[in-house]
Amino acid sequence: MSTSEFKQAQHKLLVIPGPIEVSDDVLLANAHPAMSHVSPDFIPVFGDCIRMLREVLFAPNSQPVLTAGSGTLGWDHVAANVIQPGEDALVLNSGYFGDSFADCLETYGAKVDQIKAPIGSKPSLSEVEEALKKKHYKVLTFTHVDTSTGVLSDAKGLGELVKRVSPDTILVLDGVCSVGSEEIRMEEWGIDIVLTATQKGLGCPPGLMVLTASKKAIAAFEKRTVPPNSYFASWSRWLPVMKAYEAGTGAYFATPPTNLIYALHASLTTITKSPPSIEERFKQHVAASDRVKDFIEQLGLKQLVTDGKKDGAHGMTAVRYPQGLKATDLLPKLVAKNIVVAAGLHKQVKDEYFRIGHMGVTVVNDKERGDLKYLLDSIKEALAEAGYKA
Amino acid sequence: MSTSEFKQAQHKLLVIPGPIEVSDDVLLANAHPAMSHVSPDFIPVFGDCIRMLREVLFAPNSQPVLTAGSGTLGWDHVAANVIQPGEDALVLNSGYFGDSFADCLETYGAKVDQIKAPIGSKPSLSEVEEALKKKHYKVLTFTHVDTSTGVLSDAKGLGELVKRVSPDTILVLDGVCSVGSEEIRMEEWGIDIVLTATQKGLGCPPGLMVLTASKKAIAAFEKRTVPPNSYFASWSRWLPVMKAYEAGTGAYFATPPTNLIYALHASLTTITKSPPSIEERFKQHVAASDRVKDFIEQLGLKQLVTDGKKDGAHGMTAVRYPQGLKATDLLPKLVAKNIVVAAGLHKQVKDEYFRIGHMGVTVVNDKERGDLKYLLDSIKEALAEAGYKA
Repeated sequence: MSTSEFKQAQHKLLVIPGPIEVSDDVLLANAHPAMSHVSPDFIPVFGDCIRMLREVLFAPNSQPVLTAGSGTLGWDHVAANVIQPGEDALVLNSGYFGDSFADCLETYGAKVDQIKAPIGSKPSLSEVEEALKKKHYKVLTFTHVDTSTGVLSDAKGLGELVKRVSPDTILVLDGVCSVGSEEIRMEEWGIDIVLTATQKGLGCPPGLMVLTASKKAIAAFEKRTVPPNSYFASWSRWLPVMKAYEAGTGAYFATPPTNLIYALHASLTTITKSPPSIEERFKQHVAASDRVKDFIEQLGLKQLVTDGKKDGAHGMTAVRYPQGLKATDLLPKLVAKNIVVAAGLHKQVKDEYFRIGHMGVTVVNDKERGDLKYLLDSIKEALAEAGYKA
Repeated sequence: MSTSEFKQAQHKLLVIPGPIEVSDDVLLANAHPAMSHVSPDFIPVFGDCIRMLREVLFAPNSQPVLTAGSGTLGWDHVAANVIQPGEDALVLNSGYFGDSFADCLETYGAKVDQIKAPIGSKPSLSEVEEALKKKHYKVLTFTHVDTSTGVLSDAKGLGELVKRVSPDTILVLDGVCSVGSEEIRMEEWGIDIVLTATQKGLGCPPGLMVLTASKKAIAAFEKRTVPPNSYFASWSRWLPVMKAYEAGTGAYFATPPTNLIYALHASLTTITKSPPSIEERFKQHVAASDRVKDFIEQLGLKQLVTDGKKDGAHGMTAVRYPQGLKATDLLPKLVAKNIVVAAGLHKQVKDEYFRIGHMGVTVVNDKERGDLKYLLDSIKEALAEAGYKA
């Protein structure tokens, strides 16, 4: 759409760190007529989703698990299957989502230590190394992109560290805001679990929990001495179902969200089978992120992440309001321009910043859509209307 | 569609006990452009779903809970919130789903007794009364319609029994295959929890867990001495979110499946605000069920439920193959006519019968759609092609 079309559109441009804009072909797939979850027409669609997820994560030997749910449910999968009550977990806390993952692990009986970083930063590799040398952890979790702050963790560095210092620790990447927008070479880097949801870099409506487990993670599950302490999130129930769908036979534990599977199939087909390549897609997210972050800097605004271009995510940017301005000065002016950005989320500073999402079609189809130009122009205009001078 | 149109249609008529056929307006709503889950445009849509669910269940004082998931997740909600580890639950087992609900309750630490009925029947009220008098149960569960057999439980009778014999027991109706197609007067009958999913009588795609809890059930939750032992299914997390959406403010725990909420809104609007009335809708399901069951009987076939018109569900029928015929003789012939019915599910007899779903638009819009006539004519034809003579 052109700028003038955006201004008149009934649908507001959604540029929050998820849900993100969904392309028309994915929306159409989400309106697929009703299908039996075990029909020969549906089963290979589900199987394809499993196979294409492996491509997105460079994880040919790992096992995807797809169920109705949200990213949050992925934490339950980790807490109820990979770690047993009384075992130790280390949570690298770079914001809101570290706190919550720790709560979830404790709910299922894990003993949790955390390394908490100041707002807008992340625990350093040396801090993590020290912790791993002091105590044996069954599980180490980190938020790849903390949606509350926009910090990007060093997934590759953490993978190398775990391999070197604590090779039987299960390394869990919470990728709710990173899968599809950040490079993740799961097996090469030594990541054991990647969990995410569909409404961010995967470009679908929300409603699916998407998890992928390495052979090492599956082996840890198989060595459990007590059964999983969740029912709906039990791998004892789901792994056979995933294998059956991939083998083309189908199986039943709980009804999969058939329409969302069609939507995911459409989106993953675009991501894995059409230009740009996955690698190029990640580069486009880096370029779009640089463009947003440079623009913010040129306007004289600061990010929540101290060095945003170095330590910030490529699919979102957290921007501090300029002195004297607050959420109600800016966000309604953007809504009036048919643009939806997100308010702050980190409870200690939530009134001091707003968040912009730049993922999926907004980035990859920017040439045709013009989302980014319209977004940045509108932020500049809205700031001026609020009395801010760069 | 007319019969000839069905024969040529790309989409096969889906007449299994769920997912069911979804009307075009609901499919269109499921293709809604991406929306923020906390936007002022979305929040009242979620709030309306909560309010309309109360109407469907005649439960003005009860609390709906809607999350991404499936009906199965509703069991986790009961097992992790309403009962505590070590407390007693009584499961009335009329098929596959009783076994599974019992497994789920035990996963979270409940001690489970079961009353198992022979295939095609249900525990009698006198058996239940005897059990309730022998031991105090925190929770009593029953499958309203057991999708594996087609048995309909006596929800009203069980409500009266619990009020009389064990008034502080929480009565849980597993309504995955009954809500929307069977009358449920939740508060008048004394049902404390109704759990379901969207892909059956509610006429939506799958992907939402739908639960409604009475004041008594909420009070039992609030009296817990230990926290809920699930994270994603925790009422501590979800109840404040539901109240916030209903109040028009919104709140975040895990991202709701926004598109499915739009789809549910479309479907619940039709169910609660358009003709026929809810009462009339239930009568239409009874009439459609009688028509299917009479037809089956006229063909000389038997149901899994001994007296199907008396004890059978009104949204589905489980039909035994005539002697000498098996699934592969009949089901592919129906598929060739663009009709999808379901195979057997109850493991002891699964090769001996098939299942027909008759719910939602297939029943209520039968005049325009002609689903039922085409279905019954096709069953008759397919049987003849397989060599069966009535």
